[in-house]
Amino acid sequence: MRLTKFTDLSLRIVLRLAQGDGIRRITAREVAMAVGAPHTHVAKAVSKLQHLDVVDARRGRGGGLTLTPLGKQASVGWIVRELEGSGDVVGCVDDPPCPLLRGCALRGALRVAQEAFYASLDPLTVRDLVAGRETWLGQLRERSYSDAG
Amino acid sequence: MRLTKFTDLSLRIVLRLAQGDGIRRITAREVAMAVGAPHTHVAKAVSKLQHLDVVDARRGRGGGLTLTPLGKQASVGWIVRELEGSGDVVGCVDDPPCPLLRGCALRGALRVAQEAFYASLDPLTVRDLVAGRETWLGQLRERSYSDAG
Repeated sequence: MRLTKFTDLSLRIVLRLAQGDGIRRITAREVAMAVGAPHTHVAKAVSKLQHLDVVDARRGRGGGLTLTPLGKQASVGWIVRELEGSGDVVGCVDDPPCPLLRGCALRGALRVAQEAFYASLDPLTVRDLVAGRETWLGQLRERSYSDAG
Repeated sequence: MRLTKFTDLSLRIVLRLAQGDGIRRITAREVAMAVGAPHTHVAKAVSKLQHLDVVDARRGRGGGLTLTPLGKQASVGWIVRELEGSGDVVGCVDDPPCPLLRGCALRGALRVAQEAFYASLDPLTVRDLVAGRETWLGQLRERSYSDAG
């Protein structure tokens, strides 16, 4: 099971920016180096993150990227939902569509499962990712054990 | 977010076999036609499903594929786990690995989310997929609404 490369890269960018001191802006090229991706790919992801009002980009001297106030408190689940879209996790309506589509009960079950994935990430904020909140991460781990139990 | 094409195909095969009358075996070529995949791909998926003891394959006259008794009652979550494996949903340890891996809190959160995806499918059996159990599907839908609420 994989998120898209675009989501992967976008999350790396958000994480890298969250790791900053919140004061000094980081250039897109510095971010590209830090996340291990081509500058062109980073630029595209930054554009999407700007559209979501998670990242702010300023040109010129002292310019560069930073998380917006919204971005710092944004839900990771919300960010992933916006990046991934809401398609099926299998090829129900690919080209060609699945011949078993009509009357298929699996499609709905997989949508519910996908929602569970996102819902698990909804309470987690970007700030949580870098705050060293071991209590939070401990709660996540405990939840995974009890759910799997 | 996508499951692998191999998982997609394997689930289609399981669904198609579950839709059978449970008496007449279906040949691999018939299954390939029904699920819209090349016979060679189907053969590979069938081999995995045999290894999981979900599908039984018999050669010769009156031969073909059928679900095993285990396969009919198997948990869909268990099947998907076995097919997908337990890797990360993003490229944490791809080649090259993610430069932000050390100290990353996102990786653990994504693993918990992935577990929530599988756990959502755990209570669903192959038999449920074709039993017309509207009550069960209704419960799934209600759960998705309340979780999203």
